[in-house]
Amino acid sequence: MAAETPRDLRALFDPRSVAVVGASRDPAKWGHWLAEGALRGERRRSVYLVNRAGGEVLGRPAYRSLAELPESPELVVLAVPASAFESTVDTALGLGARALVAIAAGLGESGEEGLRIERRVADHVRAAGAVLLGPNCQGVYDGLAELDLGSENFVPGPIGLVSQSGNLALEVSLLGADVGLGISRFASLGNQADLEVADLVEALAAHDATRLIAVYCEDFRDGRAFARSARAAVDAEKPVVLLAGGASVVGRRAAHSHTGALVSDSAAIDAACRAAGILRVSSPKRLVEVAQLLLAARRPCGRRLAVVADGGGSAVVAADLAAGVGLELPRLSPELSASLDAVMPETATTTNPVDFAGAGEQDLRAYERVPRLLLESGEVDVVMLTGYIGGYGLLAEELSAAETEAARGLARAAADAGRPAVVQSMHWQEPPAVALREAGVPVFRDVEAALTATALVAGHELRARREVPSSPAPATPLNDDGGYFEARALLAAGGVVFPEARHVTGDGEAVAAAAELGYPVALKAMGLLHKSDAGGVVLGIEDEEQLSRAVAELDERLSPDGYSLERLVSAPASVELIVGCKQDPRFGPILLVGLGGVLAEVMRDTAVALAPAEAEEVEELLLGLAGASLLTGIRGRPPLDVGAAASAASAVSRVAAEHPELAELEINPLIVTPTGAIGLDARLVYSQPR
Amino acid sequence: MAAETPRDLRALFDPRSVAVVGASRDPAKWGHWLAEGALRGERRRSVYLVNRAGGEVLGRPAYRSLAELPESPELVVLAVPASAFESTVDTALGLGARALVAIAAGLGESGEEGLRIERRVADHVRAAGAVLLGPNCQGVYDGLAELDLGSENFVPGPIGLVSQSGNLALEVSLLGADVGLGISRFASLGNQADLEVADLVEALAAHDATRLIAVYCEDFRDGRAFARSARAAVDAEKPVVLLAGGASVVGRRAAHSHTGALVSDSAAIDAACRAAGILRVSSPKRLVEVAQLLLAARRPCGRRLAVVADGGGSAVVAADLAAGVGLELPRLSPELSASLDAVMPETATTTNPVDFAGAGEQDLRAYERVPRLLLESGEVDVVMLTGYIGGYGLLAEELSAAETEAARGLARAAADAGRPAVVQSMHWQEPPAVALREAGVPVFRDVEAALTATALVAGHELRARREVPSSPAPATPLNDDGGYFEARALLAAGGVVFPEARHVTGDGEAVAAAAELGYPVALKAMGLLHKSDAGGVVLGIEDEEQLSRAVAELDERLSPDGYSLERLVSAPASVELIVGCKQDPRFGPILLVGLGGVLAEVMRDTAVALAPAEAEEVEELLLGLAGASLLTGIRGRPPLDVGAAASAASAVSRVAAEHPELAELEINPLIVTPTGAIGLDARLVYSQPR
Repeated sequence: MAAETPRDLRALFDPRSVAVVGASRDPAKWGHWLAEGALRGERRRSVYLVNRAGGEVLGRPAYRSLAELPESPELVVLAVPASAFESTVDTALGLGARALVAIAAGLGESGEEGLRIERRVADHVRAAGAVLLGPNCQGVYDGLAELDLGSENFVPGPIGLVSQSGNLALEVSLLGADVGLGISRFASLGNQADLEVADLVEALAAHDATRLIAVYCEDFRDGRAFARSARAAVDAEKPVVLLAGGASVVGRRAAHSHTGALVSDSAAIDAACRAAGILRVSSPKRLVEVAQLLLAARRPCGRRLAVVADGGGSAVVAADLAAGVGLELPRLSPELSASLDAVMPETATTTNPVDFAGAGEQDLRAYERVPRLLLESGEVDVVMLTGYIGGYGLLAEELSAAETEAARGLARAAADAGRPAVVQSMHWQEPPAVALREAGVPVFRDVEAALTATALVAGHELRARREVPSSPAPATPLNDDGGYFEARALLAAGGVVFPEARHVTGDGEAVAAAAELGYPVALKAMGLLHKSDAGGVVLGIEDEEQLSRAVAELDERLSPDGYSLERLVSAPASVELIVGCKQDPRFGPILLVGLGGVLAEVMRDTAVALAPAEAEEVEELLLGLAGASLLTGIRGRPPLDVGAAASAASAVSRVAAEHPELAELEINPLIVTPTGAIGLDARLVYSQPR
Repeated sequence: MAAETPRDLRALFDPRSVAVVGASRDPAKWGHWLAEGALRGERRRSVYLVNRAGGEVLGRPAYRSLAELPESPELVVLAVPASAFESTVDTALGLGARALVAIAAGLGESGEEGLRIERRVADHVRAAGAVLLGPNCQGVYDGLAELDLGSENFVPGPIGLVSQSGNLALEVSLLGADVGLGISRFASLGNQADLEVADLVEALAAHDATRLIAVYCEDFRDGRAFARSARAAVDAEKPVVLLAGGASVVGRRAAHSHTGALVSDSAAIDAACRAAGILRVSSPKRLVEVAQLLLAARRPCGRRLAVVADGGGSAVVAADLAAGVGLELPRLSPELSASLDAVMPETATTTNPVDFAGAGEQDLRAYERVPRLLLESGEVDVVMLTGYIGGYGLLAEELSAAETEAARGLARAAADAGRPAVVQSMHWQEPPAVALREAGVPVFRDVEAALTATALVAGHELRARREVPSSPAPATPLNDDGGYFEARALLAAGGVVFPEARHVTGDGEAVAAAAELGYPVALKAMGLLHKSDAGGVVLGIEDEEQLSRAVAELDERLSPDGYSLERLVSAPASVELIVGCKQDPRFGPILLVGLGGVLAEVMRDTAVALAPAEAEEVEELLLGLAGASLLTGIRGRPPLDVGAAASAASAVSRVAAEHPELAELEINPLIVTPTGAIGLDARLVYSQPR
């Protein structure tokens, strides 16, 4: 579990002295690479190489043990086998080390015994007030501090990188280098015996040279702590981009409700990202693409896009792709089109997309003039220039300087207008592209990536900032049998509306209850996992005769544990929702809302949030569903009471958060009508079977 | 319209002599670039430069006119203004030219007068038995023939490229060059005054050096001819990859049915691609990615994927992404896992995804051994190696040769197993990657692209080969008022089942008809565009009294042109489909099928095919819908009669194809029950208002 108070990681990233235990002469060994890396920072700090055999390593005398060092090393890096892990850490702590980095594999990831050792060592580390990265990690890097232990030749830059994979950290750094983005700090997570992803994100948020935090993580440990530290980073204007690994792995726990099946591990991560303001991506390439946009001089703060192309095909392809990623190409006003006409040749297209049709060949300053008019118009939120820029200098050397100057002009136009320009060019590595990047304008190689990243970042910037919800005080744990009536009672107490119902056990009781409630009624057989699927629900019972017939038929066919007799809810212009919560082992209770019914289940149109969620946030979730138009009115249907549905779902999320003993809690369906929302079924599942 | 018989394009791509009219000394002019390019092929053919002013161009004497040339030029390239286009073509034809390439802009694309000139010129060209590319085009290229007129320094290779955009052709060539793929032939479409995209695809299909045809097209002209030429190319084992431009442009014609609104220009292109076996992509990058896979030594012929990674993070990310693009990671058999265990270190993961966990560092031959076992097992259709390969040589020069040899071993393993390997590596340009590509194994830079392209190609290879349907003989054109009963009658004659119905005009007729049909009945008000939305349909009328009440209420509220009184279709376990056809101006009648009802409309779960479509093909469309499980049975629902639905839709498509005078023809909804399919509404829309 992540520590409550921030850990001091200065000694980890910028130690005054470093000792490499296990420094090796063998160039294929970690102990060699670490020693090499440590020595690269020798002008900033003392570096001690420790090798049991003594002698020389990389031209330096090797100490036989930590105890022999002339001073207490602030940071100790352990390139030792698993068997020497605990004793080496203890020795280092005894000497006063403040930070440890353990490369050693074969501990927690290999089984129970390794886990026990890790827990013991972490206790020792914390007791000593030190920090430990790893074990089973790939080192640490700080560009400004010239600390390079295990890195893969990172270039310094604005990205703080936390990764549970060395391969992916390297891949991110290579992709970043292509677009001029380097690494400020890198920490390899390893087994997170002591320092967890949350601690490292927190440290990067406080690190001046880090302007964006990129995380690859498979094991989030205390997921809410991670979300809170990410939230704090985002609030401090350091965007957090997450590539979450292993999200597709099928959970082994059997789900007992539809919510349980729908809230995957990946959905829980989505809920956390939503609360924390994390931008989640699915590949290293996408990570670097959104980082480019997030680190640009200006970010897109809306979806209205003008496409400017220096070739018809590029304009058309960009326009075709834009809608698919959720960007809009507004029609330009006649005034704006006229002002574009005035600076372009007659053949140019001055609607959106704008096509140069030779304007660039005629006068390279078109690359500044046209975007400037668009950016300053206020009619669009972002201008994407797509196509060829960077190629003129290849065609004719004499165009080179003018082209780069035109690129700088484009960046100036964006700066003057205070709105972002994004560029895609097949000549993405030529001097004009480099000049654009230096001036804060991102340049992409492929247009689909440019548009997708723009849409992702625009959507992200538009989203309302939320808090990571705190857990409410736990209520008295439930201790009943968790049946239908108990679930209804619990949720009704939380504020959810249900139709009036009576628990009846036979024909006589049913008839009496129906007389009290008034016909028409609905009859539901109890004690079945999926009442409707089993044919255990009879709706629209109009009179006593029909009721008796229904009871007799269900008795015979299903032998249920009694019935719920309910006033029939008649709501022709309504929509069924599914609303539920599930306890995620890392991220706590997760609220899910979605369109209900069989068809919606096939379509899986759902959204998630960390529980408890306020009604206002749930309303946002509902209105963001693909099928939201069913709720807001479509083809003559009346708008439904989305607010009531949101309140009900919010209540479910609160109840779930107050009852951590519940693994799952669900209303399915929740009927939304033009004037309210009413639960037609309720289910709860305990974490531990009663 | 594309010509009926193949055009002979030998003189266009490999002429015995070339004349450049408008050859220029100005290095910023087309006439200069074309002359330069033409001279690059001088050792293969005579090259004549024509410039009205005479003198010298590029060190050659320039002729003042075509008439001065010492021989009749086989190919004449026109870098002349629009005003000189017609006369220059006529002169060239008079001299016996066999092929013309016209760069001139300002003709058909600029208005009616230009179009008239183009039509006239095309007639002259055809009468002379010659061919014309353009006008408003960017030239032609043939790598083997060393013909380079207007190219952008293409590198020779296997891709035949037809493009309506110079920018995009260049971008494709640059992206291709990165992965060792060059261009066999390039033709710029321009205005297609004579040669159309269909002609050029046909020519490339017959061109030995072309192994794959890549098309960027905005204007398909005779779309069915294009589809037929692509089908012929695909049947000749030359895959066709299409980037269609302008597909998102909102059609200006108002749609009168839901089908009309749902069959976008883009959907019509999809239907053509389906029939022709064309693989459609949305960006130049994707085009080159699928080309890489289609041109590899072996193509994925199934969706079962084994992921092999030389780093845990790479394995996890690839596995997470695979499901999202439609690939499956099957569990490996215990025998296969055991055989992998035997060749890998203990720390390695030998389930799917397979993680080397240092196996590569231990012995580079793991890069051959592990994929070989997987490929030879028959348990997967394709192996994707992802991560680092190519980097060992960067780490340590002495590993370089062994690493490249390991890469060749991987290619050998794929060849021996007869199954494809696909590689993603952050070191995608290093010698091992080049060796892999040379041995027919595609290497990608980013894993999402590698997986997406693999899934696209696997899906494409799995699809049943279809024919481009021919239009049936037109039936006698309809000439009625196209109302509900006429539409029903037309479709019923085609084989669609409808409930029994009577056209009635008032209460008396309604009651009499109901007595004949038997209760319950449905009453539908006629003469309304959307009966249901307007509240013009009353279902479940049980007796005469209810019927009279319904007639009175509808009379009062809607004053309809009479009613259809129908036997009520009661089918609780049924699903509503929408089935319709629309005439596309380029691709002819298009069939659309999809899930009906309001929710499905929101979800837009539809599929298209060229009409007429056989029932077997429609069944494939229906079973490919996202919501197909609603048809095949889900959660205890019975499977529905998909065959009957497919037959009904096939009938609709046949009727539409026989009646080109119909712009739209629709059944919405078509109710599919466990034992049949029945149309509950029918609509037809004439192309010309009656």
